[in-house]
Amino acid sequence: MKIIMYSVRSEEQPFIDIYAAAHPDLQIETHAEVLTQENIEWAKGSDAVCILPRGPVTRDMFARLHAFGIHIFATRSVGYETFDLVAAREFGITITNVPSYSPSAIAEFAVALTLDLFRNTRSLYRRVEQQNFVWQGLMGREINGQTVGIVGTGHIGAVAAKAFAGFGAQVIAYDKYPKAELSESGLLTYVDSLDELFAAADIISFHCPLTPENTGCVNDDSIKLMKDGVHIINTARGKLIDSKALLAGLRSGKVAGAALDVYDNEAPYYGQDWNGKEIEDETLNAFLAMDNVLITPHVAFYTHVAIQNMVDIALNSVLEVAQTGTSRNIVQG
Amino acid sequence: MKIIMYSVRSEEQPFIDIYAAAHPDLQIETHAEVLTQENIEWAKGSDAVCILPRGPVTRDMFARLHAFGIHIFATRSVGYETFDLVAAREFGITITNVPSYSPSAIAEFAVALTLDLFRNTRSLYRRVEQQNFVWQGLMGREINGQTVGIVGTGHIGAVAAKAFAGFGAQVIAYDKYPKAELSESGLLTYVDSLDELFAAADIISFHCPLTPENTGCVNDDSIKLMKDGVHIINTARGKLIDSKALLAGLRSGKVAGAALDVYDNEAPYYGQDWNGKEIEDETLNAFLAMDNVLITPHVAFYTHVAIQNMVDIALNSVLEVAQTGTSRNIVQG
Repeated sequence: MKIIMYSVRSEEQPFIDIYAAAHPDLQIETHAEVLTQENIEWAKGSDAVCILPRGPVTRDMFARLHAFGIHIFATRSVGYETFDLVAAREFGITITNVPSYSPSAIAEFAVALTLDLFRNTRSLYRRVEQQNFVWQGLMGREINGQTVGIVGTGHIGAVAAKAFAGFGAQVIAYDKYPKAELSESGLLTYVDSLDELFAAADIISFHCPLTPENTGCVNDDSIKLMKDGVHIINTARGKLIDSKALLAGLRSGKVAGAALDVYDNEAPYYGQDWNGKEIEDETLNAFLAMDNVLITPHVAFYTHVAIQNMVDIALNSVLEVAQTGTSRNIVQG
Repeated sequence: MKIIMYSVRSEEQPFIDIYAAAHPDLQIETHAEVLTQENIEWAKGSDAVCILPRGPVTRDMFARLHAFGIHIFATRSVGYETFDLVAAREFGITITNVPSYSPSAIAEFAVALTLDLFRNTRSLYRRVEQQNFVWQGLMGREINGQTVGIVGTGHIGAVAAKAFAGFGAQVIAYDKYPKAELSESGLLTYVDSLDELFAAADIISFHCPLTPENTGCVNDDSIKLMKDGVHIINTARGKLIDSKALLAGLRSGKVAGAALDVYDNEAPYYGQDWNGKEIEDETLNAFLAMDNVLITPHVAFYTHVAIQNMVDIALNSVLEVAQTGTSRNIVQG
């Protein structure tokens, strides 16, 4: 069996090599390039395609794979919003994802950003870099005693809730599908609506998938509901937040701080070096200039554990579908 | 009653004002200056002195206070290592400290530094500041699954243990006086010696007072006992670590990273702006240049909660001693 892998990053290669060594019957061809209309030709002769999504996978692309006789398509990501799932089904292509590669990777990063906001560590590091060891003006805040609102209590949100609770925070949560085991253990208290969470939380941390319902859920109206001095942490999806509304909230002082590992218009910038070039996105420029906004380029997932799991789980799903016709990681369109 | 306060920082003044408003019979005189042999004269006419220790309080100084009729001396800090306690007793001066002003302030900062080391956030922030949104090369590590060694399980260490456990770390601890409630709850496991802790921990975090026994306990010999790739976090006292030995351990790769909020030779630098000046301490210069070393200028204690508690607890102790002759915050020489 042959698997072609696109958008393979240098840090994935060692884990792919380990996987290949453990599966001598498997032929794995790796490419750094992102899957496109043009290089989809390279897949001819393979039995399965494995990618990281970095752009749309269109009807036409699924038609081409079908024509090549390829009917297994695995993404090494959780998300697959950019796939034409209707077309995939029509062409008989089974899609798998990695539903969870390391909840701790993302949950721990959300806490790291919260602590960095609360303790002004970026400003401290900048001062120390200038040999300035003065700390006046950078008084911190404590997570202990805060009310943390977790939006989404799937794998990641549950781990984040536990971590915040470990500091002595009171954790509240909203999820369309509450998990009884989380509330019954006393770890957190569910509220009945996102608005209720927004109104009660000192720290709001997003750990949900993007849906039509929650797109832009942080907006001018919802910010009005929030507590004065609220902190907003987003390690989930950029489009959960109307960035212009958040910027206005920060400028008015209503929102005390924000940490954004994702950004609605991140695609042109994240993963790229824009040093010396002009960023045209004025909202992003404004965020980058603010002391109380931390911007990181979509790295919350990026740990050793996570990368190994992304590779292993995606390739295991391919083998499972090939051998049994099914997998619990199959994505339903 | 009149209290004179030395080394009052601008951020303390609002909390002192609140305290004074609530105690109209009390006269509080505040000075930004650190208590010295010279300005101790200002205390004449007061009934008590309240300081932050920034240098020795000598036999001669206690003798002077005695001569002024002052017999209550309160520090707003935990530490009082620089006081001549024998002389204080001889001159009938009761000393109080603030045994715990906010365990969370310091414990949370220790976790913040650990996460910043593990997730390379300082490097990320530096890149983003240059509009470089590339994250390759900055793959992170997770606290989940690590063995964290807590040295000292007093107020702060216990809070730190709980926070690290919240991430899914296995917590071990060493303390001369183990607390049964911490081990019996399953939060942590005590080991029998510092060496045993050093040998087993992936992350070592110090939360103990400095004693003759543990001075320089991180040294060439103890580093040899540690795991390859160990991370060392110090938010306690600089002299716990032989800095030259730590530097050698970092250079050899034995120690993967260190986060130091305290430093044995911090006094000339911390709290000061050395921008444009030459730092003569070559070990500090080396630490400042290393990507895997985070230096912060003794700020772990520095939160709103902590500052308010330092002021309130110190002044309450003064009143208690004045009114009752005793206080549970009295320091025994």
